[in-house]
Amino acid sequence: MLEKDHAETNPSERHRRVRRWRRGSVRLPPGASSARSTVVSEPAGVTYFEKLRAASQARDSLLCIGLDPDPTLIAGGLDGAVDFCRTLIRATSDLACCYKPNAAFWEQYGPKGWEGLATVRRYVPPDVPVLLDCKRADVPNTMAAYASAVFDAMEFDAATVHAYHGADSLAAFARYSTRGVYVVCHTSNPGRADLQHLRCGDSRLFMAVADLAMRSNDAGNIGVVIGATAAVEAAAVRTAFPGLPFLMPGIGRQGGDVEAAVRASFTGDPVSCLIGVAAAIMYADDPRRAAVAWRDRIRRAAEQTGPAGR
Amino acid sequence: MLEKDHAETNPSERHRRVRRWRRGSVRLPPGASSARSTVVSEPAGVTYFEKLRAASQARDSLLCIGLDPDPTLIAGGLDGAVDFCRTLIRATSDLACCYKPNAAFWEQYGPKGWEGLATVRRYVPPDVPVLLDCKRADVPNTMAAYASAVFDAMEFDAATVHAYHGADSLAAFARYSTRGVYVVCHTSNPGRADLQHLRCGDSRLFMAVADLAMRSNDAGNIGVVIGATAAVEAAAVRTAFPGLPFLMPGIGRQGGDVEAAVRASFTGDPVSCLIGVAAAIMYADDPRRAAVAWRDRIRRAAEQTGPAGR
Repeated sequence: MLEKDHAETNPSERHRRVRRWRRGSVRLPPGASSARSTVVSEPAGVTYFEKLRAASQARDSLLCIGLDPDPTLIAGGLDGAVDFCRTLIRATSDLACCYKPNAAFWEQYGPKGWEGLATVRRYVPPDVPVLLDCKRADVPNTMAAYASAVFDAMEFDAATVHAYHGADSLAAFARYSTRGVYVVCHTSNPGRADLQHLRCGDSRLFMAVADLAMRSNDAGNIGVVIGATAAVEAAAVRTAFPGLPFLMPGIGRQGGDVEAAVRASFTGDPVSCLIGVAAAIMYADDPRRAAVAWRDRIRRAAEQTGPAGR
Repeated sequence: MLEKDHAETNPSERHRRVRRWRRGSVRLPPGASSARSTVVSEPAGVTYFEKLRAASQARDSLLCIGLDPDPTLIAGGLDGAVDFCRTLIRATSDLACCYKPNAAFWEQYGPKGWEGLATVRRYVPPDVPVLLDCKRADVPNTMAAYASAVFDAMEFDAATVHAYHGADSLAAFARYSTRGVYVVCHTSNPGRADLQHLRCGDSRLFMAVADLAMRSNDAGNIGVVIGATAAVEAAAVRTAFPGLPFLMPGIGRQGGDVEAAVRASFTGDPVSCLIGVAAAIMYADDPRRAAVAWRDRIRRAAEQTGPAGR
C-alpha cells in the first residue's frame, strides 16, 4: 500500500510525492504499466486500490468516467446503450483510470438491463478497474447477497454502499478484501442537508458516517463518496481522515467545482481523489475530446495542490 | 383512504374499527373482495395502500411473504429459484396480503437474475400487491432512473428506499402517487446502533428519518420500514406518527417478537402493520402450513391489540 499515510507527513514530503506520482516513479504493481490497455492477467492479491493507483499512474489521470445510459438521449434501447458505451470505452480507455456504471441507469431498461451491464463491464480493458455505483444497503445476510452479486457474479472491482445499517452490514462488502468499497458520506444534491448535516453529538452526520467507514476499514479497502459540489465538507472529511480515498461525483452537470474539489481532497496519492464525470463526457459532441479536457483540468488542479494547497 | 386517522381517535373507537376490519365490514375497493385471487383489472387510481388494505381485509391477514431465494437451499440455479417461488405463491396466495422479493437475492444469480425476478412478479395474482425490497437511494436524477426501473419497467406496486440523500431524492419515488414507498427507518440488525441510534438534537436519527418520511408524504403513499426486533423503537415511531404505515421485517430467523411488534404498531388499519416473514416460510418443511401458522399468530396479536394495547 504505497503512500497510504502521505497526508500525515509534512507538506514538503507530500509535495515530493505528488511530483513522484506525476513522474510515474512510484512503483507499480505488475501488469499495469502500459498506458494503452493490454490484456494482462491480474496477479492474485492485487487489490482494487492498487489496481486503481496503477491505472491512474499509467495514464497520469484521476478521471473516472460514468457509464450511465439515458434512453432519451441514446437510440436503440438497451442494445443501443451497450453499443454506445462500447464506443465510449474504446475512445477513452487511455484517459480514464476507472469506469463507473451506475446500476440505476441499467435497471431502467427492464429485466435485461443487468445483462447489458455485464456486457459493458467486459468491454473495459482488464487493467482498468470498474466500479459499480449501486449504493446498496441492507441487513448483513441480505448485504452478503448484494456483495456476491456485485463481486462474485458480476466481477466488479469496487462498489458503493450506504452505511445506515451499520458496521455489520458494511462488513459483508468489506470482507472481499481485494475489492474496493466506497461508503456514501456527503452527496452532491441539495437534499443532503436534510439528514447528512444533522448535528450528532460533536459533529454532523456525514462525519459520523466517515468515522464508521474508517472504523470498518481493517482490510484497507474502504473509501468514501464525497460529492464534488461541497469543498468545505470534503476538506473537513480529509482533515479528519487523511488516508481515506475519496470518490467524488457531481462534476459537470451537477455543477461541482472541480478545482475546489481536488484541492480539498487530493493528497498526492492518486486514489485519494477519484473524480467522476458522466453526462458531461458521455453526451458531449466529441466524448474523447471532452474526456481529454476533463482529465487535463483535473490533472492541473492536482498539480496545483502542492504544499500550500488546502 | 379508509381509517387513516384511526389512531388519533379514542381507544374505544379504535377497538370498534379493529373489530369492523376483522368482520370485513369496512368498504373494499372494487375488484378485491374474493379471498382466492381472481384476475381482475385494477381500476385506475387505486393506490398501493388501498390495494394492500383490500388484500389484507379479503384474507384477514397482515402477512407479507418474502421471496428471497437462497442458491444453497434451492437446487437448479435461477430456474430452480423461479419454480420454487411459483410453487410457494400458488400455495400461499390466499394467506399473504403482499409478496416481497428482495432484489439482492435475485441479483446474486447474475445478469439474468432480474429476468427471474420479473417472471416471479407475474406469478402473483393481480389483487395482491408486490413490494420490491430494494432499498435504493441516490441523487434525484439517478433516483428517478431507479424509480422508473421499479415502477415503470418492472411494475412493482411498492418499493423500499433509503432517506440518506434527503427529500429531493425521496420525491423521485413518491411522485408515483399510486405506488407505495417505504423509507428504511429502524432496522432489525445489531449494527443499527452505529448510526440509527445517534442522538440528533432532541431525538435519535431513526426518528429524524421517520420525520423526513412524514414530511415527504404529500401523496399519502409513504410508509416506513421498522424492524420487528425492537418493539420499543417501533412504539416510539408509532406514537410520534400515528398514521404512518409500517413494514416490519425481521420475524422468524432474525428473532423478532411478533406479538410485541404488532402490539407496538397496529392501529386497527391493516396497512399500519405489514409483517414480513421470508425464510421461516420459504424453507419450512411445509411452507403452506408455516404460512397459516404465521398468519394466525399475527392475526391473534392484532386481535389482542385492543384499546388496552401499547
